[in-house]
This record gives sequence, C-alpha cells and structure tokens, in this order.
Amino acid sequence: MASIAHELAKKQKEISVSEFFEKNKHILGFDSLTRALITAVKESVDNSLDACEDAGILPEVFVRVKKERNNEYNVVVEDNGPGIVKKQVPNVFGRLLYGSRFHARAQRRGQQGIGVSAVVMYAQITTGKPAKIRSKISDDDVAHQCELVMDTKKNRAQSTKEDFVIWDKEHGTRLEVNLKGKYVQGRQSIFEYLKGVAIVNPHARLTFVPPDGGTIVFERSTEDMPPPTKEVRPHPEGVELGELLTMAKYTEAKKMTSFLNTEFSRISLRVAREVLDHADVPHDQKPSRLTLDQAGAIVDAVHRVRIMAPETDCLSPIGEGLIRKSLKNVLGDLKASFYAPPITREPKVFAGNPFVVEVGIVYGGQLNKEESVQILRFANRVPLMYQQGACATTQAIENVDWRRYGLEQRGGKGIPFGPAIILVHVASTKIPFTSESKEAVANVPEIREEIELALKACARRLKTHLNKAERKSKTRVKFDIVQDIIPMIAQKSAKIVGKPVPDIAGTITKIMNVVWVEDGVTFDKKKHHVSVKLYNYTPKSQRLHVHMVLPYDGVVGKSLSLEPAEVRNGGKVTWDVKRIASTEVFELSFDMKGLDKDEYDENELYVSGIDPASVIGADVLPGDWDLEHVKITEEKPAEADEGAENGEVDYDEGAEVIEDEE
Amino acid sequence: MASIAHELAKKQKEISVSEFFEKNKHILGFDSLTRALITAVKESVDNSLDACEDAGILPEVFVRVKKERNNEYNVVVEDNGPGIVKKQVPNVFGRLLYGSRFHARAQRRGQQGIGVSAVVMYAQITTGKPAKIRSKISDDDVAHQCELVMDTKKNRAQSTKEDFVIWDKEHGTRLEVNLKGKYVQGRQSIFEYLKGVAIVNPHARLTFVPPDGGTIVFERSTEDMPPPTKEVRPHPEGVELGELLTMAKYTEAKKMTSFLNTEFSRISLRVAREVLDHADVPHDQKPSRLTLDQAGAIVDAVHRVRIMAPETDCLSPIGEGLIRKSLKNVLGDLKASFYAPPITREPKVFAGNPFVVEVGIVYGGQLNKEESVQILRFANRVPLMYQQGACATTQAIENVDWRRYGLEQRGGKGIPFGPAIILVHVASTKIPFTSESKEAVANVPEIREEIELALKACARRLKTHLNKAERKSKTRVKFDIVQDIIPMIAQKSAKIVGKPVPDIAGTITKIMNVVWVEDGVTFDKKKHHVSVKLYNYTPKSQRLHVHMVLPYDGVVGKSLSLEPAEVRNGGKVTWDVKRIASTEVFELSFDMKGLDKDEYDENELYVSGIDPASVIGADVLPGDWDLEHVKITEEKPAEADEGAENGEVDYDEGAEVIEDEE
Repeated sequence: MASIAHELAKKQKEISVSEFFEKNKHILGFDSLTRALITAVKESVDNSLDACEDAGILPEVFVRVKKERNNEYNVVVEDNGPGIVKKQVPNVFGRLLYGSRFHARAQRRGQQGIGVSAVVMYAQITTGKPAKIRSKISDDDVAHQCELVMDTKKNRAQSTKEDFVIWDKEHGTRLEVNLKGKYVQGRQSIFEYLKGVAIVNPHARLTFVPPDGGTIVFERSTEDMPPPTKEVRPHPEGVELGELLTMAKYTEAKKMTSFLNTEFSRISLRVAREVLDHADVPHDQKPSRLTLDQAGAIVDAVHRVRIMAPETDCLSPIGEGLIRKSLKNVLGDLKASFYAPPITREPKVFAGNPFVVEVGIVYGGQLNKEESVQILRFANRVPLMYQQGACATTQAIENVDWRRYGLEQRGGKGIPFGPAIILVHVASTKIPFTSESKEAVANVPEIREEIELALKACARRLKTHLNKAERKSKTRVKFDIVQDIIPMIAQKSAKIVGKPVPDIAGTITKIMNVVWVEDGVTFDKKKHHVSVKLYNYTPKSQRLHVHMVLPYDGVVGKSLSLEPAEVRNGGKVTWDVKRIASTEVFELSFDMKGLDKDEYDENELYVSGIDPASVIGADVLPGDWDLEHVKITEEKPAEADEGAENGEVDYDEGAEVIEDEE
Repeated sequence: MASIAHELAKKQKEISVSEFFEKNKHILGFDSLTRALITAVKESVDNSLDACEDAGILPEVFVRVKKERNNEYNVVVEDNGPGIVKKQVPNVFGRLLYGSRFHARAQRRGQQGIGVSAVVMYAQITTGKPAKIRSKISDDDVAHQCELVMDTKKNRAQSTKEDFVIWDKEHGTRLEVNLKGKYVQGRQSIFEYLKGVAIVNPHARLTFVPPDGGTIVFERSTEDMPPPTKEVRPHPEGVELGELLTMAKYTEAKKMTSFLNTEFSRISLRVAREVLDHADVPHDQKPSRLTLDQAGAIVDAVHRVRIMAPETDCLSPIGEGLIRKSLKNVLGDLKASFYAPPITREPKVFAGNPFVVEVGIVYGGQLNKEESVQILRFANRVPLMYQQGACATTQAIENVDWRRYGLEQRGGKGIPFGPAIILVHVASTKIPFTSESKEAVANVPEIREEIELALKACARRLKTHLNKAERKSKTRVKFDIVQDIIPMIAQKSAKIVGKPVPDIAGTITKIMNVVWVEDGVTFDKKKHHVSVKLYNYTPKSQRLHVHMVLPYDGVVGKSLSLEPAEVRNGGKVTWDVKRIASTEVFELSFDMKGLDKDEYDENELYVSGIDPASVIGADVLPGDWDLEHVKITEEKPAEADEGAENGEVDYDEGAEVIEDEE
C-alpha cells in the first residue's frame, strides 16, 4: 500500500497553462473543425475592436478566409487599431494568460489574456505553421512583421523572421494564421457572427472575404464612437473576506484608512473611518496586520455603513435607439411586422461588478411561426454563437411565461415558439463566462433576474402591439357592417314612411359604443409627426387620459395640439383629454425632431380614466406607471348629451319602421 | 496615437493561473452559493474515489456538511484511500494545474489537476480560513495533518500547524474546509449528486451527514472492483501535425523508428518502418530533425498504413447488467413500469482517445407524463449536475426523433416529454469537458454521434415494450368479448334450432385471426425460468421464427423445450417453430442460471416468417438482425387444416341461425 502512496507521489507534477489548453483545446472553443474556424475569427476580431476602442478609433476590420487544402484554411484579420509595440508582440500573440485587460475593471470584449494567443497555438498545433504578425504604430514610418513559434511546454513564443515593411496604413495590426478547420454557412457561421457584431457595434465597419469569393461589407450605421468607458476600482460590497485579506497584504497603503480609500471605489476617507469604527479596527493600523476577525468585521461593517452604488460610466450599453436601428439595418430583409421598443435597464451590481442588461424583440414578417424563437445573445458587444443552453440568457428566457405575451410555450416553461427574434445584451466590467471560450454567461442569480425583468418589460410592449392589432381587426368588421347597413336601413325606411332621412350618428354610437383610437407616425423634413385620433363612438361624451412613452426632449413645444398634464422621467407623458362629445373626434398631435427615421416609428400608447373595454386601439395603462400629479379618476357616469338623445329618438323610430316592414 | 500603443504596452502583464481562477471562480463551478457547496463536495468525492481505485481499494467515502453561520458551511470529506505522502500535500491541495492524472491517458474522474485545489482556494477566498488536511499512508503508524494557506498571486500553498495524530484508520485522507455556500435540497443538490455517484459506482459505499442531521448511507450493490484500467499511449490516428513536431522535439528516442514505436500505441517497429517509408522519411533520422513537410507526410501516411484500433482495456464501462441493477437499486421508489435493457456500445475513438457510450431508459411508474423527460448524465462515472444544455449528451437526445419511440416531442426536435428517465454514461481516457467545472461534455462530433446511436438502440427496446403493451390491451378487449359472446350465441341458437352446441373454436379463430404471444420470466432457486407461449388463434396452422436476445451462456441446455436453430454473438438466439395447428398452443421454454434476479426480468422478443400484423405480443424482427444460417421465408400460404374447416362449417350454421332469429 505504501508503495502506492509513494508511487502516486512520483507521478505528481506541474502542468503548464499552455500544456493544459493544448490538451483541452475544446475549452477554448476548438471542439470541432467548424467551430475552430469561427472561434479563430471571433477572437481575432474581438481583439481588433478592443484595440480600436482603447485608442478611440472608429474600427475598420478586414477578415479574409481562404481554403489552403482539405481542412486547412488561411485566416487574415486586419484592423486600423493603434498597433502593438515590437517587443510586446510575442507576449500578446504567443503567451496564454497575458494581457492588458485582465487586471482592469472596465467593459472590454477580452478580459482573460487568452483568446488570440489560443488561436496562434491552435493554428500551430494543427498545421505546424507559425503565425505571421504585422503591426504599425503611428509614430513609425514602417510596419514591423514577424513569425511566432510557440513552445507550449513553456508557454512562451519566439519571434522569428523579423523584418520591416512598407505598409500603406497609418497604424494597425494584421494577424495571419493557417489552421485546421471547416468553413460552413448557416446559423453558426462566420457570416452570422459578423452580422451579430454589426448589430451591436453600429460604429464598426466590417469587410469579409469568404473562401467562395466575393466581398461582404457591413457598413456602420453611426459615425459616433460609443462613449469611452472608465476603469473602476472594486466596489466594497462585492469583496470576499479572503480577497480583502489578500488586498491588505499586498497594498502599498500604510494605514487602513488610506487602504480602504485607495483600493475601493465609493469609499471616501470619511466613509473609510466610519467603516473602521463599526468594525472596531484602528484607523492607522498597518493593512498587512489585518486579522481574520478584523477582516470579517469590515466585510460586515461595509453592509451597515451607507456606501454609494458603483459608478456606471464604466459601462457602454448600446441604447434603445441604436438597438432598434441596427436590428432594422441588419435584419431588414426579414420584413418583420413589429420591432418592440427595446429596453435598456438601469445598471445593477454583482460581486462588485456593475452590469447592464438590454433586450429587443422582433416579431412577424417572414419569421417562422412553427419554430422556436431565435435568440440573439451578446456580451460586451460580442455575439455569443455556441452553448446557448448553458447561458444565463437562455435560462432567463425559459423562465418567463411567454404565453402571457402572445407566444406559444408548453407548460409556460422552456424556449417559446413563434415568429420572433429575441435579442439580449449584457454589458459589464466583468462578464462571468462559463468557460474560456466565452460563449455562455454563467448563471449568476443577480444577472439572470435582471435579464428576466428586461424580457418581461419588452414582452409587454410586444403584447400591447398584438392586442391592438387583434382587437382592431375584430371591431373593424363590426364597424364596417354598422356603417354600411344602418344608413341604408335609415334611408329605405325613411322613404317608406315618407319622412326625412334621420341623423343616425347616435344610432351608430349606440351600437358601437366604443372610443376608437387611430394613432400613427409619419416622418418628413427631418421631423416625426405623431397623431392620435380619438373617435367617440359612444352615446355619451367621454373624458380620458392618454399616456405615451416618448423621447420627450425631441418634442416641438409649439406643435403640441394639447399641453401634457404631466411629463415623467423616461419620457412618460400624460394628457388629460377633458371632453369628447358623442360622435365627435379629438386629435392629439405634435412634432418631434432630432431623431433618425428608424428611431421612432410606433407609438407606445395607453389610456386611463375610462372603461378599457370600451376603447379600441389603445391598451389600459399598466400598473407600473406610478403617476405623480395627475389623479386618475376611474370611469364615472358621464353627463347626458344632446347628440345622444337625438340619436336615441331617431333610433327608436328607425326600429319601429323596420318592424312595420316585416 | 503612439502614446496609446506604448501606454497599452505598459499595461500588458502576466496573469498567474490562480489569479485567473480567483477572478473567474464561476468557471470552476462556483457561480452561485448553492452550486459552490455542491461543487466543493463533488470535487473532493471524485478525488477520493480516484485515489481508492488507483490503489485497488473498495471506496468508503464519508461526507459531512455542517452549517457554521449564515452562508458559511463546514465541509468534511474522508476516504479510505492510500493517503498522500506529507511533502505532496501542499501541491495536491494547494496548487492549481498540478496532479498525477493530467499526463496519464487513462479513465479517471480527475484529469486537470485543478478540482480539489480550487475548493481549497474558494474556501480561503470566501471565509479567509485555511483548509485542514489529514492523511495516513499504511506504512506509517500515525496520520500527519496540517493547515494550508494559499498564495493566489503565486499559486503556491504553505503548510502550517503541521502535526502528527493517532487515527483509527489504516490509511486514508480527510479534507476539511469552511466556505461560503447555500445548502438546498431537490434536483440539483448534494443528495442528488451522491445518488448519481451510487448509480454509476455500484462498488462504492457512501455516507452523507447533511446539515439538518440524520445519516444517509448509499450501500454498494456489488463487492467487485471495476476491472483496473491501463494507461495507454496516444493512438497515431489522433495526433495533430503540430503535436507530432513537439513530441519529436522532446522525445528521448534516438531514431524515428524507435520514436514512433515508443511514443504511440499500436505502432510496432514493423509498422513504424512502413509509415516512414510511405512518408519517405529515413528510418534512422534524428526525431529532433523532423521537418514540417516530413511531419505532414507522416500524418498522411498514418491514415494509409493499416494500424490496429486503440486498446480498450484502458476503459471501464459500467456494463448493461450493473446499470440496470443500480438503476433499480437507487430509483426503486419510483416503481417504474419498465427498465429498458441498457446499451453498452463498442468502444470508439476521437482524437486518439478511446471512449465508450452507455445508455439506459426507465419508463412509467410514478414518473410525470406531463413533464419533459429527466436526463441523468455521467462522465467517467461522475454525475454531471449543471450546464445540461451545453452537453453533447443533451444535444444528442434533442437530435433523436423520439416520436418514433413513443415519446412526445414537438417537431421531432428538442427534449422529449413523457414519463421517462434517460441515463447516458460516457467513459474515456480523456473526456472533453466544455470547462474546468467539468459539468458538460463538449460537442465533439464522434462522441455525439455515438450517443445518438446508443439512444436509438435503447429507444427501440422501449418502443418494443410500449407496442407490446398497447396492442395486447387493445386485442385483449376484442378477445374477451369474442370469447364471452360467441359461445353464448352458439348455445342460444343451438337451443332454438334444437341442434347440439357446435364447436366454435374455429369461429373464434376466424374472428380473432391472430397468433397470441404470452411471454414471461420467473426467478426461483437461483434460476430464471423463461416461457414463451404461442397461441394460434388463426384458422390455419402457422410456422414462424422466434428470436430472443439472451445471456445465452446462462441457458441450461437440457431445459430447452426446443433446440435453437441458430445462436449468434451478442446472445441473439433464433428458434424455428415449424408448425402450430389452428386453435393449438406451443410453449417455448428454458431455464437460465448464473444471473442475479434483476439482471434478467423482461424478454427481448421478436418474430419473423409470419405476417407481423397477425401477431400480438411480439414485434417483427428488426432489420439490423442479419441472420446467418436460418433462412427467413416470408409468410407463405399455409396448408389447409381440418380444425379450421370444421370451424368454418359451424360458423356458417351459427350465422344462419342468428339471421333466423331476427
């Protein structure tokens, strides 16, 4: 037995990180030939986009995939980024767990220091050929280029065949590798990946030259860079006890007060003292002396002292306007019948990392009713192509009861069926991926719950749209009949009894008994014109509140046909329409400017203060609209109304006549 | 701009593997408090089971989880393994990417050198408390114990508070950690994990003391260790070009012939020479001199030269008998109505790694008809609890059209619905997990396809069972009516016309016109008695072939009521039943010994040489049964038969009488 324990001991040895990943390439996304090729492009492009944004450059990325021989492809990815200084090339491209973004708390695509080096390694493992790198930084006149040979046992790369070349580019980087792979088209393909990149990076211009020839260009839909994101220090509420001890051990701060103040965000010296007092730790104690109990006390204290929420200027969501715009831009050929106004939630925090969730839904058009909905997943503006089932995004979608929002779903669980595409984007200073291949967001409760809330909010907007469409078409039928038949009857009967044709407006209202809402948006001369017509087809005069969600800053004050009673944050606007006499119509209208055509093309419209059953064309105000100033009086008996009286009289006569006739 | 390139350069730095995983704990399976606790137990238990099996010890593993305070738990895992020599403890438990199993090509639970050290790290990060380790190797009289403090910046652990203690164990190891977690019950829980371990490790004895008190023991259902698995060298067919170059660079072999012969499995010196000749590489060339082109030529040559398939004695599947046995053992309380005979496929290879797939299906009983089927996933005898959606196992299940096998499934895709549990076990010298948390098998095409084949084979057995059940119950109704009614009519009408009651057997057969198969298995005095009764309820005499899948070695020759016409490998047995006269019954029966009761309790029964539509109780022989000697003659006109003639005559009389009566 002893022998065994000792034998085993002999076998124990260290594993180099590159050895580990050489043997576990599938963890990095190289589990099949098809995926390997996509992963190689993905990691390289993500790298290029990060580099450009770090330098505030509008990205121009060029991708070329060429078939060398059976199962061997040549991949080139070229960008207009700042370039990489010569001596760093072997580290950036030839060394795993090495990079600039791992230690930074900021929203980046790459955060692990693995991605692009993994591509170089995989290429070398499968074809034995070194990667070719060319890079130019703007204060050099020429580009330097080299070939990298990786030693996976040591996790180091050697730069060979170094040279300087003329490059007609001010600055940029070019990676060229030969690797074993398989080029395919369809749902999981390089094309679909680049399409996804275009959707969530409207500021990037992408060019793709596929193996089968031709050139595909994804033009940018905006010239504005996303606002630059700041780096942040960890927020104290997220810190684990053990981490705190380690930080205290390695800090340069001399005293606990300065330690807390300098290492964490949102901890002023004042707050630091407050925390230390709660934890009963001396202000000027040396951080390295921090004991386990003291650390525990500080972690507890942090939750008792009031500390500001983390900064959020470290995040760069895409924004509701741009999501809708680029969805249309890229998915236009689907002719979808409805683009639900996207949702961008307020930033939240997990383990000290701020994050924000965005959701958009596309419905109808040429999308297949019989299949399960398509899911577009994004993290820090990167499309996620694989491991959908492992992703918190998918789990959130499966948790929502979509039957309540007009989609099919067995037992109210699982991925729903219907003609829809659901887009989810998670942006954070730290995306918790389930693996180094960065294809699925880990099931962190805080994140999953945020996604569910965003999905529900967006789904409500979809439902509103579907309701409206359905109820309108139904009532429309009844309405048309009434409007055709009644007048005919009136005329005919009038003729028979030799009386003048009666005014039958009242009769129609009596039969219809609805308030009909027609709303629309037109775009002309850089202006959106919004019109909401309220037809009172009831025998009584009506009063009601109209509510809309608008980019209200854009509204041209003088164009308003009626001043809002209230304007809330998030552009929640409420009008008080005091009186529409029976059979009359009231038009609420105004212009908006400063928006692109696509940014506003459907009104989110609600009514209140009236029996919702009697309104066609607008939904009742959702409960989550907590109005401040306007008091909503629920539907009250309306005062008598002459028009209606007349109507009734005529109606009775008409009725008699009809009877006579039979 | 230059400044940026240089600025970025300054930020570039190395990341230690432990830093990486400290920041990415979710990759290791610590993404939520609930999962963290399960992962901690899982990694420790897997480690214990591997240690025991390495040493050929029947595993006794003790697990205790105790609540310390809100969200802090104390976890103890103790085994009777060989123990760990003192100086290796800090490496085994306190260092990531360090271990004995990474470089070995053998079927083990742990293969990464991360798992248990990750537990120690997570515990320290979240509670700041060091892990306590105690270990005893059999040639020491006392156990040594210590506390480990990890330095995550350096990925090294320091052993503190070392001591020797008396331990009433011959040998073993005990790990104790305090960590942040949440204890839950239900589908994803420590209990369910241990239950899974018991199912696929029938030789292990597990004891669990949960926080809420009590003690749960999973007894072993066999005393036999799984056969020890050998280590193997890589199979040449899986080697990548770049890997070959690296191996050639580091080999100790002096010549190419000995290099190929010593570094790869299945390459004799003769084969080595043959390969080198094909590749046009000198036999005695120094491996270190191998060029890229030569390496490429060798890789190609390997596929042209005939090389034996990889050894498979490096694998330890559970086996069809044991899977069924332990499924019943552990899931017995479900009272399932049917345990489909499990399938263990022949070993296959991916990237030079042998692997084998096993599948079992449990059906009916108290399982819910309305929910989607439960999936039990296992890899190298470890239950997989999370990331079901990312697993090749799940994808294989989703790819099968289960509607053909009696389960509900929308559009023939996705996870089916029905009262079933599907068990899938993948065993390999190298399981390609999607991440270090080892919860999902990567979607490697070779593996996924094998799983699909196994699922279909097992599903066919389920379908056979469901068919039998359904058709029998339907026909039974008809049968009962006929058997009750006809005689009554016969008697009544005979009385009326004053004739003797006719023999109506023929009438019944005419109406039924089926061959009724009743088969059963009984167990008594260590023997299985199998009986297959063939009732010929047709007006003609019948000839047919009966086919069964049996552990034929167990069959007692002299007990056979009819000698088989053919016995094939895999226990495929065929009988030729030459003649069963109309209205008569033939019984085929025999005894089997040497099997446990649970190992055989349902016959897999097929017929051929007869119109399947006229057989109730047995399915027609599947096409994949390629019989050798027996010639199957499809249903042929049977010779006239007296019994039948009489029947017809009586029947006609009866019919007349009935008419008279109206």
